[in-house]
Amino acid sequence: MAAAPAPAVLISEVGPRDGLQSLKRTMATADKCAWIDALHAAGLREIEVGSFVPAALLPQMADVAEVVRHARSLPGLTVLALVPNLRGASAALAAGVHKLTVPVSASAAHSLANVRKTPAQMVDEVRAIAAWRHEHAPTVGLEIGLSTAFGCTLQGRVDEDEVIRLAEQLVAAGADECGLSDTAGMANPAQVRRLFTRLRAALGERAGAAHLHNTRGLGLANCLAAYDVGVRAFDASLGGLGGCPFAPGASGNVVTEDLVFMFEAMGVATGVDLPALFAARETLRAGLPGEPIYGMTPEAGLPLGFAP
Amino acid sequence: MAAAPAPAVLISEVGPRDGLQSLKRTMATADKCAWIDALHAAGLREIEVGSFVPAALLPQMADVAEVVRHARSLPGLTVLALVPNLRGASAALAAGVHKLTVPVSASAAHSLANVRKTPAQMVDEVRAIAAWRHEHAPTVGLEIGLSTAFGCTLQGRVDEDEVIRLAEQLVAAGADECGLSDTAGMANPAQVRRLFTRLRAALGERAGAAHLHNTRGLGLANCLAAYDVGVRAFDASLGGLGGCPFAPGASGNVVTEDLVFMFEAMGVATGVDLPALFAARETLRAGLPGEPIYGMTPEAGLPLGFAP
Repeated sequence: MAAAPAPAVLISEVGPRDGLQSLKRTMATADKCAWIDALHAAGLREIEVGSFVPAALLPQMADVAEVVRHARSLPGLTVLALVPNLRGASAALAAGVHKLTVPVSASAAHSLANVRKTPAQMVDEVRAIAAWRHEHAPTVGLEIGLSTAFGCTLQGRVDEDEVIRLAEQLVAAGADECGLSDTAGMANPAQVRRLFTRLRAALGERAGAAHLHNTRGLGLANCLAAYDVGVRAFDASLGGLGGCPFAPGASGNVVTEDLVFMFEAMGVATGVDLPALFAARETLRAGLPGEPIYGMTPEAGLPLGFAP
Repeated sequence: MAAAPAPAVLISEVGPRDGLQSLKRTMATADKCAWIDALHAAGLREIEVGSFVPAALLPQMADVAEVVRHARSLPGLTVLALVPNLRGASAALAAGVHKLTVPVSASAAHSLANVRKTPAQMVDEVRAIAAWRHEHAPTVGLEIGLSTAFGCTLQGRVDEDEVIRLAEQLVAAGADECGLSDTAGMANPAQVRRLFTRLRAALGERAGAAHLHNTRGLGLANCLAAYDVGVRAFDASLGGLGGCPFAPGASGNVVTEDLVFMFEAMGVATGVDLPALFAARETLRAGLPGEPIYGMTPEAGLPLGFAP
């Protein structure tokens, strides 16, 4: 049997954080761990397992330290957690995450509504997190997801020069990487190519992942556009969980199963096994009975004769 | 008020043929005409209005000559009809269509199952149609949709050399244009780029439209891929009607609304007005009460500040 090719793209699974955070209900810790196990068994090697935020604000994430401890036991897995500030970062480092991700809004309106800070204040926060990380856990990664980079439901258009300037400031403040997020599902492929091309020109190897939504059906087209201009890391969510779906039948986040299928069908190795990924949907369903789970490829099945 | 830019792509609406043909129920003639009026009012300038096939086989299309007569009254509209053979072509020409489209399967298995003819026998049929057209209606267009060009549910893989050879034979037999159809929803963007690049190299200006399906969620990504290699004509269906959807919440055909949104958001003019296109959904719904209608952009709404 031939060895599987080395992955050419990194699929970073965000469901256990982004998906669960968007639900009102709370998944049991054992179910979260079983789901993460199933994702890991399918070949995913980076998973955002939760948020370090006050349990009073997000009770769904109250067990995040325990989930991190479990996820750390899985071989070869990069365990990622979202932290909105230094307090969350220090808790995440104490729990043993491998990588921190900090959301920073490019839109001032969104930033104020979301974290009551301006983008400039968030740059200061990232500087503080980077300094703390440098002192206490220098091997832990620190990435930024620049949200509303392609448009904002509160202010509409977001200036592209501002997005790039903010990304440069965040890297200068000590972030290892800065990616771009289409939080509102407003991106189009021309814009994705333009903005990621500029990001890569500005940040070089510190240009980070594409976090794209499927709100208006353009999720995979936008991922293709990002891939075309050199992006090799993509956030996605099993079953499209989370990411604020607006439309019935529509996921918010790009569906991991469909994204992996697209790349594998194109001959771009992801390291992910599609049948095992489809099986992980059952584990997710068992932990969230009755919750809608999206994904066109698993519903239609793999094409006859499909061999990635 | 600035004049609208000239369309850079042609969106060819196939719902009244492809969509209705896939349903068991029959839409009333007046409802078909009202739907076509609404599509035309939204700016669509090519509509496949029906099939010329025996009414015993497809009672949904028994009124096709009447629908053609109505559609011909709409200014600037190219009225297209599907014909599987010479008998259908002569009936379509008598009814006054502007353009004939003949489906030819690249997969022998699909061709035999669908029309009981081999692809080579279909080339002969196209030759006969082209000769008849030349004699009786030389200004009427004749295009081929090469179905199962990207894979087949019966035989799996379809040889790409065979697809290109067949396209060349069909043009040599007298077709004006030959496009490629992803009948089974098996295409991926790399394959779409490869095959349309080859088609355009082989046929030049006679390379025709991309007819792509959204079965596995890749419809728009595949349209983007085709656009990238120079394709400028795309089939789509309002509300994603037709095209054999397998999955709940999944359309078969690419959804016209989402495709137009993608292009307009990219700055690629389609000539189609999105709010008027959304309004056409209501006309469709009125004619087919209770039928599922897809489309993520109309459900989510246009983004704040969107100005095509």
